[in-house]
This record gives sequence, structure tokens and C-alpha cells, in this order.
Amino acid sequence: MSLTNSTPESAARAASISACSLATLSLSSRNDALSAIHDALKSSKPAILEANGRDMVVAKTASANGQLSQSVLKRLDLSRPGKFDDMLQGILDVRSLPDPVGKVDLRTKLDEGLVLERVSCPIGVLLIIFEARPEVIANIAALAIKSGNAAILKGGKESSESFECISTIISTALEGTQVPNAAIQLVKTRDVIDQLLSLDAYIDLVIPRGGNELVRYVKSHTKIPVLGHADGLCSVYIHSDADKDMAVKVVVDSKCDYPAACNSAETLLVHEDTLSTILPSVAEALLSKGVSLRCDAQSKAALETSLPASSAALLQDASEEDFTTEFLDLTIAIKTVPSLPTPVPNGTASSTEAPSNPSLDLAISHINTHSSHHTDCILTTSSSAAEHFLSAVDSAGVYWNASTRFADGMRYGFGTEVGISTNKVHSRGPVGLEGLVIYKYKLRGRGQGAGEFGEGGGKRRFLHEKMGTGES
Amino acid sequence: MSLTNSTPESAARAASISACSLATLSLSSRNDALSAIHDALKSSKPAILEANGRDMVVAKTASANGQLSQSVLKRLDLSRPGKFDDMLQGILDVRSLPDPVGKVDLRTKLDEGLVLERVSCPIGVLLIIFEARPEVIANIAALAIKSGNAAILKGGKESSESFECISTIISTALEGTQVPNAAIQLVKTRDVIDQLLSLDAYIDLVIPRGGNELVRYVKSHTKIPVLGHADGLCSVYIHSDADKDMAVKVVVDSKCDYPAACNSAETLLVHEDTLSTILPSVAEALLSKGVSLRCDAQSKAALETSLPASSAALLQDASEEDFTTEFLDLTIAIKTVPSLPTPVPNGTASSTEAPSNPSLDLAISHINTHSSHHTDCILTTSSSAAEHFLSAVDSAGVYWNASTRFADGMRYGFGTEVGISTNKVHSRGPVGLEGLVIYKYKLRGRGQGAGEFGEGGGKRRFLHEKMGTGES
Repeated sequence: MSLTNSTPESAARAASISACSLATLSLSSRNDALSAIHDALKSSKPAILEANGRDMVVAKTASANGQLSQSVLKRLDLSRPGKFDDMLQGILDVRSLPDPVGKVDLRTKLDEGLVLERVSCPIGVLLIIFEARPEVIANIAALAIKSGNAAILKGGKESSESFECISTIISTALEGTQVPNAAIQLVKTRDVIDQLLSLDAYIDLVIPRGGNELVRYVKSHTKIPVLGHADGLCSVYIHSDADKDMAVKVVVDSKCDYPAACNSAETLLVHEDTLSTILPSVAEALLSKGVSLRCDAQSKAALETSLPASSAALLQDASEEDFTTEFLDLTIAIKTVPSLPTPVPNGTASSTEAPSNPSLDLAISHINTHSSHHTDCILTTSSSAAEHFLSAVDSAGVYWNASTRFADGMRYGFGTEVGISTNKVHSRGPVGLEGLVIYKYKLRGRGQGAGEFGEGGGKRRFLHEKMGTGES
Repeated sequence: MSLTNSTPESAARAASISACSLATLSLSSRNDALSAIHDALKSSKPAILEANGRDMVVAKTASANGQLSQSVLKRLDLSRPGKFDDMLQGILDVRSLPDPVGKVDLRTKLDEGLVLERVSCPIGVLLIIFEARPEVIANIAALAIKSGNAAILKGGKESSESFECISTIISTALEGTQVPNAAIQLVKTRDVIDQLLSLDAYIDLVIPRGGNELVRYVKSHTKIPVLGHADGLCSVYIHSDADKDMAVKVVVDSKCDYPAACNSAETLLVHEDTLSTILPSVAEALLSKGVSLRCDAQSKAALETSLPASSAALLQDASEEDFTTEFLDLTIAIKTVPSLPTPVPNGTASSTEAPSNPSLDLAISHINTHSSHHTDCILTTSSSAAEHFLSAVDSAGVYWNASTRFADGMRYGFGTEVGISTNKVHSRGPVGLEGLVIYKYKLRGRGQGAGEFGEGGGKRRFLHEKMGTGES
């Protein structure tokens, strides 16, 4: 590991070169490196907390002056109960994950003695840019090494003392392992993010770990693929036939379980038929949790009729902007989906297509044009309405009768999460180690030339015979 | 299908909206649309060839004036024997491919009545930019519809008459199908490529189908992911223990089978030990095929000694630039890899790591820093040297004793090919229909909230129970 003050370009070039030898390391060599990092961090806990304490002193002053939010202060603090142990456990968790590298998912006999394999392999060089949370250094170093990728780590200024301390410990720990020295580059130079983002010749993937603004900045300043999401504008739609109790429970959990999270609901769509049957209970439950309800005219009128005056007085008017706003707090925007008649099938539609429901299609269309394609939910007792919603909504997560808050790598059972992606290529939704690998085609022959194969006279035909991959 | 002269933005927005309903079409509806396209093109052959003839008249004049290459002229000509029928057959081939959409590759029971599925789904909106070959319109329309993607097609000016004719026929044919009208957008307006490339809000993937310059231009003018490769600088490395006859055969096929192809070899690396044993035969074979040999000093000196004077007189000197040049013709650059002593193992290396071979590592390092990460080959009789090469070379295709010319979707058995990708994320190497899909997570519950799960008092634990995916 290099603790470098060299230029971003030389760091990236060195990482790129070392990535190729890192890619050949056995699983046990990579796991040994994780053990070494774990043990070194564990035995250096006092020094790390001391360095983190220095960051905290500066941060508390900044916070007192209103220059730093309480939430950043909280994320920075490694001395919070359980946080240091969670960091250590995270490394062991990554170590115990199955090897993402070397998985064969296709094996084809092209000809006798000519076998093609598609094998998972590391992507190459990752650039990880993070803000306040110092434990991300250990977490991401572990994920990168486990997946055989070189990594360039660039930390934020708030955590600079913690970053230097943790990274020096990791660096020293790796010296006794097979991981090449240059495979993990720690860039401490300030103000070099733009330079790093321009190094698409060496860097294969950028992972910003921080707030929306960081992600949005990174996405708009680089040609390198970015794994992440800038926005989490999730919606819940209450269909005409939803179950009332279920609706109350799912909407409240989606909004209130942790409002600052990207997978919290920001928009509530309600079918017109439910305005006086289901919405009042949902609204009461949300108001009792302190949620501000920003209602369109129709839902507000309905709630003013059905809610007690004291509750009705709390209702707010929604603007168009509210339906594209990620509130990240106890606020939700409510929109009515008009009740439209269902057309009589004209007989020409394929029998395998679901029958059309114009109200449902309006809800889907609102979500596809307003949501951030993160996670969206329908509440309905109709499986055909649900399946149509799950197919037609273009989001990483599409849920039927379950809280949007389930969109998370740990909850999905992926173990440690690299991030949540709203990209449409490569990785989508919560991303585990799989998102850090790609594949290559290995072809093993006996000296065959392509000119021997083809149609007609004296040419051989390809066998294209599927072979087992040895995977369970 | 819209034959639009509207703005690129309105075309892209319309495609984006229709993509969501296209994504819900059944396989039979999508296949029916392919049949309709096939039948309509088949019955309109005379009209299409007439329109193509008008393009050819203009192109022949341009070619006679030196403004258009012979190869573009050849690619434009739909009346060449077999070409029209190949176009029709291509549509039927795509129709017969398995459905890439709706494949479940992960199914996990998070809790009783809470099941997570990862299901393949269309990416959304493809932008396909192509140059001279008119049959690509039919080919790509078929691939897009089969994979449930909306597509915006932008043709080159050389094929404008063919494009208009074919696309009108496709458009009319699709009217009687379930494919939404706006799902395939044909942009005929000129000079709008930059505008299209800026529409990352609506377009999810760009596929440039044309020469290197087009691909390079597209890659450097958009934030949208691009599927393709600008360069194909492939290398063949003759290791110290290669088999001579095999080396001759593979090198000649890699270079001479079709020199203008991206998977042809441009660089030949030769281990110093083979300069007088294997290289002379390889060089003689290449020279007899009319290949120009650009040699580094050491290989030239060796060949001057061993080749007949008449052959030796043909040898050229290689410049550094030759080792980063994609010749695309009968030229190859030859570089010597010095013979270095193999170090005695020091006992600290993990027993699972391959023994180090410094010459092999030099060859690998040359390839990783000079090749275009497309396809590279090692010729060796040692399986441990081969396996190290296959792991350490960072290319989409890594071959042992087989011609680089095998890097091709048809040869790999993928059926119709979308393109060849040198990207490090999403799709790599020859890309079949799989490259046009991504996945979404479907979660079906009974009203669960995330707040019910966790550690400790009254909280439930996730089951994370793997379920079968129903795939063979």
C-alpha cells in the first residue's frame, strides 16, 4: 500500500500496473491480507481513537460554528458504542464471503480441443471517494482486496487524521502479505478530485461514498463509470383494492423507519377510490408520527372531510416540485390517481398480456417520470395488478406489499454492501461483491485457426456444445 | 414505429415512455413483431433494392472522386449475393433465440411471505448510430424488440435512401403488432448526433456500429454508457517453449485470415530463446502471405541471420509507435522479450501462487500497457505459463494456443452479435442479447415493514433462505 503524496496520475498508473498482479492472487492470499488488516487495526485501537479524537475536536468546533451538520459529526465519531467493533467485524464478514473471482458461468466446446470459458475477474482499478466516515477506509480496502481490485482511496478533509492513522496501519499490515505494494493507493493531497476523475485511462470504476451532492458532482465530472445513486425518490402507490391495515403499516414504515435514508418513501400515490376509505387511516398514522403531509387538492379535500379538525389543520398544499423532491425528513407528498373506467378488451390483445387498468397505468407513468428509479412499491390485493406494476415500473427495486426500506444489501442477504446503484447497466440496486467483478473469455486450444471453420468445402463446423460449469 | 423529423429530445422522450410498456410485452408478442418485420421486408425486396441502388449511384460517384472508400461502397451494397437473404435470416435467428427477459437468477426468502427475486429486464432506451450498412437497421430493430428495449436509430448519410425505405417498411409492419408505436424511433434529421448523445436523461445505452472513428467520437462526446470498442490491438506472444508448427499456424491465421478485422493480430511478441528456432518459420510464412514485418533490432538481427537474403531484404524497422498501432492491413510489429533467469523460490510465496517467470511477466506487462484489452494470445506448451497469462492479461479475450480471430459472437455460439466490447463494466468481449438486459429486484410481501427486523428484543431475524430459481 502506498501512502502517496505523488501526483494523482502516478498513483493511478501504479495502481493500474499492480492490478494485473493482484488479479492473479489466490483466494487464500487475499483472505490472509484481510486477516492482517483486521489484526493490525484491532491492536491499534487506542491510536486510531486518538487520531479520530483530533478530527472530532476540529469537527465539533466547525459544528458549533454551524459549518458542519450534526449528522456529519455523528458519522465521523469512531468512539460511538459498537462502531469500532463493527468496523473490525465488517472485515471478517468480507473475508468469509465466497470468492467472487474465478467463477465460470459459461463453458462451451467450440471444437475438439477448443474450449471457451467465461470467468469472473476483477474490474481493475477502483477510485473510492468518501466523506466523513473513517470506517469506510477499512471496509472498502477489504472489499477491493477480496475482489482482486486495486483501489485508490481519497478521503474527505473532516476525517483526515483518522484517515492517515488507519491507512498507515493498513499499509504496514499489508507489507507482510502477497498484496502488491501499489495496489491500494491512498491519496492525501487535497483538491485533486477533478484530476482523479479525469484519469479514465487508468481507473475503471468510481464509487462515491457520501452524500447526494458528492455523488451528483462525481457523476457530472467524469467519463469513468460511476457506481452509486444521487437520489432516492421512492414512491408508494395505494391501489383501489389495497388492504387498509397493510397500507397503514407499509406507508408508515417506508416513511418513518429512517427518514434520512435513500430508501425512504417521499411520494404517496393514492387511488381516488381510497381517498375516504384507506387514506384517512394512513394520514392519521403519519400525522401521529409527526409527518408533514403535502397534499394535492383532491386528497386534501377528502382528508379535510374525514379527519378530525385538529388533524385537518395540519395538512399542507403540495406544489408540483414536491413530487420531484427527496425530502429526507418527516415530509411526504400525496397525489391522487383518478379512478378511470377499465376498457372492455377489444379481442385483439394477446391473451398473455395483462388486462389494461388505466388508473394503474397512470400511477406507473407518474412513478416512471418522477421517481429516481431506486425503489417503488404498490399496495394491492390483486396479483395481476401487482405483477403489471412490477414489470412496468422501471426501478431497481419494485415491491408488492412491502416497505421500500427493505432496499439494502444487508437485508437482501448480500453481506457487506458496496453501495446502491440506480444505473441501468452493470449493477443495479444494492450491490455486493458481484458489482466489483466483470468477466473475461478464456479460450484454450491446440493451435486452431479461425480460417479452418466455416460453411462448405473442407471447412469444419463449430460444435458449440454446452459443457457444465462446475457451479452448483 | 415513428419515422420522425421531430427533435431528438422529443424522440428520446417518446422512446423512454414507450420503453416501459414494451418491457411488459410477452415473448410471443415480441416474436410476432419480428415475424411481421421479416415478412414485410421479404415481400418488399424489389423496392428496397431499388432504394439501395439510388444510394449506390451517389456512393459510386463519391468513390470515383476519392471521397468514399471501396470498403464503404462494398458494405453499402445490399444487392451483393446472399446479403439480402442474410438480413432476413438474421431476423429469424434473433426470433429463435431464448428470451433474455424475465430470467430469475436469484430467489431468496427473506421471511415467511417475503420473497426477493432478481429478474432480468430490458435496459430501457438504446441509441444506435450506424454508418453505411443498411441491413443493420433490420438487425438492430430485431435485437432491440427481442430484448424489450426501445431504440432510437440514427443512420449515416451514405445509406439514407435505403434507411428511409427499410424503416418505412418496418414501421408499417409494426403497426399491426403489440409493439408500441414510439418504441422504435428513426431519426432522419441530419447533424443531430451531438444532441442525441447529450440526452442521458432518456437514453440508457449507446451502440455505435461503424468504424473506429465513429466509436471514438461517440465515446468522447457522451455521458451515456457506450457499448463498443474503438480499437482492436491484439497481440500474440510466442513463449520460450512454444510448438513451432502451432506458432506458424496461429500467427498466420491471427494476422492474415481477415486483416481489416478488429480481432486480427497487430503485435507479435517473441521470447528471445525462439528468435532462431521458431521465429524464422513464422516470419517466412508471414512474408509468403505478403505481410510486412516491422522488427525491433534484436528480432531483425536474428532474422537477417536465419532468413534467405531475398526474405531478409523485406524486413523493416519497428518504431515505438508501431507497438500501439492498429494496422488493420498486412503489417505486423515484432518485439523481442528478453530471456531472463527464473528466480529460485524464496519460500515465502503462497504455495498456490504460480512460480514467477520474469520473461513471461515482461510479455504480460507489455500487453497490459500496449494492447487495447480486446484479445491476446499466448503460444506455449506449458499449462502453468498459459494459466498465468490467462489470469494476468487484462483483456476481454485471453487465449492459449488459438487464433485471436475466434473473438466473435457467432464463433462463440451467441447467435447474432450486438457488438464487441472492451468496456470493463457490464459487458465485455462479444456481446449477445444478454448485453441488452439488466435486472431488477422484485420483492413480494404481506405488508412487512423493515422496522420489524433487527437484533434484540421483539425483532425478527431475516431468514435469507436460498430458493431455487427454476433455471436449468
